[in-house]
Amino acid sequence: MTDTIKINVDLMIEAKWLVPVTPSNKVLEQQTVVVHQGCIIELAPMPIARARYSANKTVVLDEHVLIPGLINLHTHAGMTLMRGLADDIPLMPWLQNHIWPAEQQIVSEKFVHDSALFGCAEMLSGGVTCFNDMYFFPQATAEAVLQAGMRAQLGLVVLEFPTNYANNADDYLEKGLLIRDAWRGNPLLSASLAPHAPYTVSDATFEKVITYAEQLGLGVHTHLHETKVEIAESIEKHGVRPIRRMANLGLLGPSFTAAHCVQINNEDFDLLSAHGAHVAHCPSSNAKLASGIAPINQMLNAEINVGLGTDGAASNNRQDMFTEMRLAALLSKAVTEDATSIPAVQALEMATINGARALGLDHQIGSIEVGKLADLTAVRIADVETLPCFDPLSHLIYACGREHVSHVWVAGDLRFERSSQQAGLYANIEPNELKEIALLWKSKLNQHKA
Amino acid sequence: MTDTIKINVDLMIEAKWLVPVTPSNKVLEQQTVVVHQGCIIELAPMPIARARYSANKTVVLDEHVLIPGLINLHTHAGMTLMRGLADDIPLMPWLQNHIWPAEQQIVSEKFVHDSALFGCAEMLSGGVTCFNDMYFFPQATAEAVLQAGMRAQLGLVVLEFPTNYANNADDYLEKGLLIRDAWRGNPLLSASLAPHAPYTVSDATFEKVITYAEQLGLGVHTHLHETKVEIAESIEKHGVRPIRRMANLGLLGPSFTAAHCVQINNEDFDLLSAHGAHVAHCPSSNAKLASGIAPINQMLNAEINVGLGTDGAASNNRQDMFTEMRLAALLSKAVTEDATSIPAVQALEMATINGARALGLDHQIGSIEVGKLADLTAVRIADVETLPCFDPLSHLIYACGREHVSHVWVAGDLRFERSSQQAGLYANIEPNELKEIALLWKSKLNQHKA
Repeated sequence: MTDTIKINVDLMIEAKWLVPVTPSNKVLEQQTVVVHQGCIIELAPMPIARARYSANKTVVLDEHVLIPGLINLHTHAGMTLMRGLADDIPLMPWLQNHIWPAEQQIVSEKFVHDSALFGCAEMLSGGVTCFNDMYFFPQATAEAVLQAGMRAQLGLVVLEFPTNYANNADDYLEKGLLIRDAWRGNPLLSASLAPHAPYTVSDATFEKVITYAEQLGLGVHTHLHETKVEIAESIEKHGVRPIRRMANLGLLGPSFTAAHCVQINNEDFDLLSAHGAHVAHCPSSNAKLASGIAPINQMLNAEINVGLGTDGAASNNRQDMFTEMRLAALLSKAVTEDATSIPAVQALEMATINGARALGLDHQIGSIEVGKLADLTAVRIADVETLPCFDPLSHLIYACGREHVSHVWVAGDLRFERSSQQAGLYANIEPNELKEIALLWKSKLNQHKA
Repeated sequence: MTDTIKINVDLMIEAKWLVPVTPSNKVLEQQTVVVHQGCIIELAPMPIARARYSANKTVVLDEHVLIPGLINLHTHAGMTLMRGLADDIPLMPWLQNHIWPAEQQIVSEKFVHDSALFGCAEMLSGGVTCFNDMYFFPQATAEAVLQAGMRAQLGLVVLEFPTNYANNADDYLEKGLLIRDAWRGNPLLSASLAPHAPYTVSDATFEKVITYAEQLGLGVHTHLHETKVEIAESIEKHGVRPIRRMANLGLLGPSFTAAHCVQINNEDFDLLSAHGAHVAHCPSSNAKLASGIAPINQMLNAEINVGLGTDGAASNNRQDMFTEMRLAALLSKAVTEDATSIPAVQALEMATINGARALGLDHQIGSIEVGKLADLTAVRIADVETLPCFDPLSHLIYACGREHVSHVWVAGDLRFERSSQQAGLYANIEPNELKEIALLWKSKLNQHKA
């Protein structure tokens, strides 16, 4: 009992271990994160926080490490139901004989909504609180994001060719900007302009994209230097490599995020670095589609900001940032033949603060700091796979999996919870709803499976 | 009710999907595996099996795929408690400053037993029914294997230098062979001779190993061509690459399993292939220690039998064959730039029948076939990460994780079970026993953490 008047707050999270990400390479112990109105208002040793605050809710994480919510810097949540539709197939036949025909037949606002809800559920239960998306019918993805209670930056996709969503580049742009109007002011949603790729978008359209991006203060999200073919075609058609073309058009800059960058040389590095552009590294997708292994170590040495992405479920059947963190660290060590390349701390930074920086949201998310939003993920370290634990940071990358995620908060709201004794529970997604969606679309997609 | 007299058997497992592995690339549906006295006595469509047999126990797997138990072809279960003791460190300082000093201080029969019990529990809950091991105090590992109710081939390790376990090469050999005598006739245990590596074992000792292996009909398990340094040292000291030295000594043959084979050229391929030797591919460990990426695709093309191994927990913090299967498939696609390289079916074969072949146990395990032992793993495909499922084989490799393993049988005995609503249960390992072990050794190991 004490006479001191305590400050009443919404939530206190008491964590055995806490990795704030900023400052870098710190593991704090026995810390309390104090959350009020969605924000982190204090980070203090447990006894100090208990003396100062009373909370409407206190969550005790006595065998957990608390980290910033993971940020998936490149995916297509609207493709999640196409997971495993076609695997072990080279890129072009994969696209031409499987993905594009399926998309043509099946993609609708309803399909994208249902797919994105699956994607959100999968990502949320794997500790992802925010993702950077690009797909048709972004309004449908937005609806799923809001149901899940996550955060997303949704790319307003632009292509030259017609799809079920839009007829031509102007139509894509017009539809996207109209859709975006509905999200303005929503704290969970932001938009980017998403010209699909250099090989699907003309110079004239890229110029329009730049104009809108500047006028509206939006970032640009595109696929870039994913394959050797892309680069050869660009040289043939435009006389330059795609990154040089982007630079010439004036697209590169600190609001520009390039997914992949697998096939990249020193001139490409210099251009990305000089313009402060960001890269979304997607190691699983690049390997699975046989695009190659992006030289991330060199990019990081060139001070390019590199985040991590899963890519869509059609090319990476796990929307799982734990797998991407581990793979990024392992691949870099293997190809550089340097075991110190991408240590655990750097892999976690790629999946958190680097992603936030690319999205222009690093003042709000990506680390556990006072003043930031309470987007938080707890990982339970108490199983046979993770005991004993000498270093929770190392365990996060090399031993843990997404199945060890126990709690996920977005802006201080608990959106997912799972104990060792029960299946995961979402705040606002019913497991039966997901099963019904899967049943419905499985039969429809099966008809279009080659 | 029927008048037909049914044959009474121990166990029937009714599976929605079944991947027998042999014949290759088959997915059967609605199949029953009929098990009696530890063996698979029939594999038949459900109605046929129901009409013919009555079982003491019937397990219905209505949302699962049943596969052969996974075989981990290279690990050191006795090192499991060293998981995460030292990461992101180059091989030599890692060994010299971290692993070897810790081993010198801590390794005892008790430590190896406790570590191996952790390793067995981790592997079993990840669908592994059999592993190929090499470590000090193999009698302690054997005890853990028998408690877990798994199958293992335990390497009788041989080194030149003294350790807590033995004093010199002859002492290692003598101790190992004495220990092995106690296991003879135990259906779950077999032994191999395990000269540690070309750089730690002399020609004279290799010759003794060959003599014993021939006399006793034992296989040989060693580390080989793991790093560039190993090869350079061999050329300097012996005038030849290690594989050529092994061939000259007469070690290579169909009972010889080489772990790693990362640094390997065409002459090496030819020697391994001509002698019918086996390779244990350890992609996570090779990447994490920056040894490189083994050219598995070329080995398979040269008709070398390649299985998969996790390596020990000190160098691969997950004793997880699902991760290794996925990584083997992805890495091969990335380095060959061919998306068809190591398709899902081949990754699963590497983790099952190829491993069995290397251990000389392919007449007993590695596939679901009549007459083989009922070493079986069920994987539940019913979660947000795995629904819908178009192809369970593809899902096994690219979407599922070890956390989806629901049942593991060894010789028809249920050794591990986990539902979506509860933590995993072992037949004969108490979770509290594991927690106590972790607590005990964590403090001791922490004292030796550099």
